[in-house]
Amino acid sequence: MGATVVGWSPLDELVCESVPVTADNHTALCVLGTGLIGGSLLRAAAAAGYTGWGYNRSAPGVAAAQKAGFDVSDDLAAVLGRAAETDALIVVAVPMPAVNPMLDAIAQYAPQCPLTDVVSVKSPVAAAVRRYGLQERYVGGHPMAGTAESGWQATDPGLFRGAAWAVGVDPGTDPHAWTRVARLALDCASVVVPVTASEHDRAVARISHLPHVLAEALAVAGARGGDLALGLAAGSFRDGTRVAATAPDLVRAICEPNSDALLAVLDETLAALTEAREALSAHTSLDELTTAGHAARQRYESARRWEITDIEPGAPGWLEKLQDAGRTGGVITRLDTGSERN
Amino acid sequence: MGATVVGWSPLDELVCESVPVTADNHTALCVLGTGLIGGSLLRAAAAAGYTGWGYNRSAPGVAAAQKAGFDVSDDLAAVLGRAAETDALIVVAVPMPAVNPMLDAIAQYAPQCPLTDVVSVKSPVAAAVRRYGLQERYVGGHPMAGTAESGWQATDPGLFRGAAWAVGVDPGTDPHAWTRVARLALDCASVVVPVTASEHDRAVARISHLPHVLAEALAVAGARGGDLALGLAAGSFRDGTRVAATAPDLVRAICEPNSDALLAVLDETLAALTEAREALSAHTSLDELTTAGHAARQRYESARRWEITDIEPGAPGWLEKLQDAGRTGGVITRLDTGSERN
Repeated sequence: MGATVVGWSPLDELVCESVPVTADNHTALCVLGTGLIGGSLLRAAAAAGYTGWGYNRSAPGVAAAQKAGFDVSDDLAAVLGRAAETDALIVVAVPMPAVNPMLDAIAQYAPQCPLTDVVSVKSPVAAAVRRYGLQERYVGGHPMAGTAESGWQATDPGLFRGAAWAVGVDPGTDPHAWTRVARLALDCASVVVPVTASEHDRAVARISHLPHVLAEALAVAGARGGDLALGLAAGSFRDGTRVAATAPDLVRAICEPNSDALLAVLDETLAALTEAREALSAHTSLDELTTAGHAARQRYESARRWEITDIEPGAPGWLEKLQDAGRTGGVITRLDTGSERN
Repeated sequence: MGATVVGWSPLDELVCESVPVTADNHTALCVLGTGLIGGSLLRAAAAAGYTGWGYNRSAPGVAAAQKAGFDVSDDLAAVLGRAAETDALIVVAVPMPAVNPMLDAIAQYAPQCPLTDVVSVKSPVAAAVRRYGLQERYVGGHPMAGTAESGWQATDPGLFRGAAWAVGVDPGTDPHAWTRVARLALDCASVVVPVTASEHDRAVARISHLPHVLAEALAVAGARGGDLALGLAAGSFRDGTRVAATAPDLVRAICEPNSDALLAVLDETLAALTEAREALSAHTSLDELTTAGHAARQRYESARRWEITDIEPGAPGWLEKLQDAGRTGGVITRLDTGSERN
């Protein structure tokens, strides 16, 4: 496993070196849930040469996808039957509260298929997967992309371009299923961040779930200032509250399943804010907070991804190596064809 | 005073109806401090036909402005002497910690000139102005515009386009000086938000200073997740921490002079976050916070400015009428020539 620095910052779009796959038996893709993420995935994969189809619960959602030329239906048994016949990679792309019924159906109709998901938390999904006995060919996934909108009308085949796509490397991960999932992420022009479920959940509590909570609180504080305050609001308020425009149910579905990790970082942040409050009250000083915050933002802006190379899924120690690499900013931008053995 | 709805949302750029003034004795403008805000103001006013000049403390700042063709010097006495000779409008455009020496010099060299400022808080500036005996022709100002950058090289004559520019309407405001200040804001293509000093300071604590504090705390929480968390960070973290890129000294200069109002809204926010933390811990629910936050952001997005018309500065009750109008989202987008009597 070598290390080559790639990209310039977390804001840059890395050019993915993976050549889209050609049509072969590895490209069958079954997406359960064709909202913003699942629908965008179906479109991105189709553009990369996959044979994709999907399930959606709502009739308007099905109609919208069909109208756009995609094979989406509300017949879950038929959709999964086709996956079983073609050894398709199944992607669970519904919010956490809707995951169980999907896994129930997969266990019934397509239990042997490689399985991943794009849900915003990983440990709760992994636990549910184990309850349904599907852990053998499961690899968690989470593309770090999205918008405040939802539904098929918001889908975008370029949504994942340059995004970080977390792919699970927990002990016991099947290398064949892992390769299928990593390949899908690369074919959607994302970079793969190898990470265990629990480390993922603690990380996203910091950089995704806490931002949502703070944005909601900031929006509330601003609106309590009435028309005058909202009329004076400029960039800092607009950007700081942007994700509060997300539907409340969706924010809850993202944050609540990760409550343990979120509570930990929320307590840490309450402590930091309380300390800043005391310093402001006692010494009229925000020195400590502003110095630390500025240094932290600088670290974020100057963070560099580096390329993990020479991956051989299944080789001795491969999971531990990937775990270590992911912890220090390593990403995968390509897979050699030789590494695909499924 | 009539009410006409103008604009579509706080995000829209209102087209300012004020025709740039022609060269006459109202267009003399003296800007003290030619950093991001003062320098941009000098450039915007020049483009609108003003005769502007300025003072800057630092030699490189002076050189940069001169190289761009602007009459900027480090001789404060001479700069203010010219203001006194021409009845120029003097604009104090330095951070709060540097305000006193400017007022001291103004009291010495140009005490009769109309006076405004573009400092981020208003009550502390007004108090300082009273200490130097300059309150008679002082009108507070605050254009709600800026970037994370600073210095002449960051100046932009279009910085104030469509911005809300708070203009003071405290009891005792001189109508002639007020008209000069409002006219300057309109000539820079901003809209005028009439507001008292204390109401301004409470409002900006909510929509400008609290966003800075939360952005700093969020950046710190993210960076504590290390390279893995920063590598997974996407839009919500990027936008939520954007203003933490501002130099710590500048954030302190903005927030610390408004510590009373900031402490009040920070306590309010700590209480809301603590309540959300308890609900998440006890019931795994963020229902209340997300519902309130989403409604607040919707209110912000749908807020409409309305146009205050038929202003006659100096007419009986004009200040109270403007105070009331500003509180409910009213803005001034033009001044009739007849209203200028100075």
